[in-house]
Amino acid sequence: MKSERYKIGREKLAEVGGDQGDKIIEALSAIAPEFADLLVEFPFGDIYSRPGLELRSREIATVAALTAMGTAAPQLKAHVHGALNVGCTPQEIIEIMIQMAVYAGFPAALNGLATAKEVFDERDISVQN
Amino acid sequence: MKSERYKIGREKLAEVGGDQGDKIIEALSAIAPEFADLLVEFPFGDIYSRPGLELRSREIATVAALTAMGTAAPQLKAHVHGALNVGCTPQEIIEIMIQMAVYAGFPAALNGLATAKEVFDERDISVQN
Amino acid sequence: MKSERYKIGREKLAEVGGDQGDKIIEALSAIAPEFADLLVEFPFGDIYSRPGLELRSREIATVAALTAMGTAAPQLKAHVHGALNVGCTPQEIIEIMIQMAVYAGFPAALNGLATAKEVFDERDISVQN
Amino acid sequence: MKSERYKIGREKLAEVGGDQGDKIIEALSAIAPEFADLLVEFPFGDIYSRPGLELRSREIATVAALTAMGTAAPQLKAHVHGALNVGCTPQEIIEIMIQMAVYAGFPAALNGLATAKEVFDERDISVQN
Amino acid sequence: MKSERYKIGREKLAEVGGDQGDKIIEALSAIAPEFADLLVEFPFGDIYSRPGLELRSREIATVAALTAMGTAAPQLKAHVHGALNVGCTPQEIIEIMIQMAVYAGFPAALNGLATAKEVFDERDISVQN
Amino acid sequence: MKSERYKIGREKLAEVGGDQGDKIIEALSAIAPEFADLLVEFPFGDIYSRPGLELRSREIATVAALTAMGTAAPQLKAHVHGALNVGCTPQEIIEIMIQMAVYAGFPAALNGLATAKEVFDERDISVQN
Repeated sequence: MKSERYKIGREKLAEVGGDQGDKIIEALSAIAPEFADLLVEFPFGDIYSRPGLELRSREIATVAALTAMGTAAPQLKAHVHGALNVGCTPQEIIEIMIQMAVYAGFPAALNGLATAKEVFDERDISVQN
Repeated sequence: MKSERYKIGREKLAEVGGDQGDKIIEALSAIAPEFADLLVEFPFGDIYSRPGLELRSREIATVAALTAMGTAAPQLKAHVHGALNVGCTPQEIIEIMIQMAVYAGFPAALNGLATAKEVFDERDISVQN
Repeated sequence: MKSERYKIGREKLAEVGGDQGDKIIEALSAIAPEFADLLVEFPFGDIYSRPGLELRSREIATVAALTAMGTAAPQLKAHVHGALNVGCTPQEIIEIMIQMAVYAGFPAALNGLATAKEVFDERDISVQN
Repeated sequence: MKSERYKIGREKLAEVGGDQGDKIIEALSAIAPEFADLLVEFPFGDIYSRPGLELRSREIATVAALTAMGTAAPQLKAHVHGALNVGCTPQEIIEIMIQMAVYAGFPAALNGLATAKEVFDERDISVQN
Repeated sequence: MKSERYKIGREKLAEVGGDQGDKIIEALSAIAPEFADLLVEFPFGDIYSRPGLELRSREIATVAALTAMGTAAPQLKAHVHGALNVGCTPQEIIEIMIQMAVYAGFPAALNGLATAKEVFDERDISVQN
Repeated sequence: MKSERYKIGREKLAEVGGDQGDKIIEALSAIAPEFADLLVEFPFGDIYSRPGLELRSREIATVAALTAMGTAAPQLKAHVHGALNVGCTPQEIIEIMIQMAVYAGFPAALNGLATAKEVFDERDISVQN
């Protein structure tokens, strides 16, 4: 039986990740099912569900961090989807990535923008120039 | 004579960094005065002054990224000040750092929180528990 | 009231961290008391208490990772203590750090060895040459 | 004529890397043959052959470090093979990667687990759930 | 109308990047056209055109940094081309990457060498052994 | 008895590091004397003594990489000394660090410049503005 934290986390994950969130949990269950539970419980049940920072700001923080780190392309892609799911605009996401040029260098920004473009293409979003 | 970008950047830097911003520029001028100008012109004149992402969200992104990277303690400290200057609450800053445990590990979060505590102490902010 | 996970985590933390673990939790409670609870519950309650990898191997993994990352000096120091607490020999710790020269470069190894030396000095361990 | 260190290194590499080790050396010889020699001599001849840390623990350290760093996917894959070759169980490897969520974040752990799954599939290892 | 910095930057980019530089700017314009301008203006207009370090040395620095960071494969590839364009020899590029084994570890060097090999193959350069 | 590689490495280290090199070897000998030998043999005996890249360019590459990585402050300081020892000008070192703003972000450049300033002060070098 799943814990209360799991239930809260699963709802939060659905809110952020939509169907994509479910697919990540499924894929992970094939190799480490208990870790799939922990991924629901800790990040989403314990952290994302905390008060004190609204969900939109949480996704801004995550997209910024993953773009700057440059070591988490699949997770960045998932969170560009997530940021859009919780109300960030495509332009806001592009601005976050451009800003990362200042803190993590132009390659981080360029690779982040390439990931954003993939997501926008998948969702038929065309960025106004 | 300073460029228009410099003037815009200097105003934006004052808004984000207050007196601290001035001190960073001064210190940098002692070793690389032209780079001190570039620091005003590019990050603040070109990037922070762009529309499409409000200043509060820009600081959330920067605090998140620098906490996750873990290689920029002095700059993280300056931007915890900056985040407070542009309207982030101490609780929001703490939440950003806690969230970085998920994406960059607990050491990144712990070191970020230690930096936040330094800044809060300097500003006589006591965090409500 | 603390959760069952907290109790398990607190015992595991005592086993790994000794008094040092308590001090880290206390210091953290001054700025983010709920995160202090999460630090006990997730890393120690959920992860370190899992079967499938003995505690000594867990500390070898952690010391290696923190040495390679190079962004977590206070945590590396705590885990050099931890590795010794759970039965690693000083020589094993030195070997892990030397080996990190191969994967993360000589600076990572040198900085790791400097941290190990600090811990050995605190514990009056003299390394046999 | 190859050095004594080369001979020792080549044996150690065979022990850890099996056929895969040979292939890496061959591929590298096509662009930098002298560096292929250094790769045998220093990591394997000088470091892995040192006493003071058993080979199984050396591979635990390497898998942990490469998972945490997140910048060395091909080398992580080779060392998941290596860890299995020297006696680590699939479950131990999974545990190392799960543990890296604590120190380097969930993306590092998830990407590590994806690499482990590739290796397990290649070796027809099915992980017991 | 483009700025003076843009014109200077565009010339410098042509000198370093040749046709490849144009393609990067074009691709970027599809998602973030203003950032494409900033990429010309700041790195190439403001930085690469500065006196005090010759262009060949600038490319040595960039190839070294990107190899060591290990998070910027497409940009490293572009700058291996760039280094050759401004007069570095293939052997010099290989030496830089081998040297990065010392500072960033063997995986960084190996992945850098694989990128160099791709570029050399594209340009029909065969490395003398 | 020390190897031939050790003798070559020790000479190269003296050329790059001067007295500072000796001190690093001594300090390291207190905790890991065999690794002190490896530090002479591999980086300096095997790598720095290779033909194909002149010593000045090797130091440019190292200063760039360590500035970009941001995890190796003591080693960066040693190599700013090293770069000056083998003929780089203070202005060239400043330019390398400024350029790293493009590839690794402004914090990397700022922290690198602070290290350069420390070294210049120790050597009574005043940078012409």
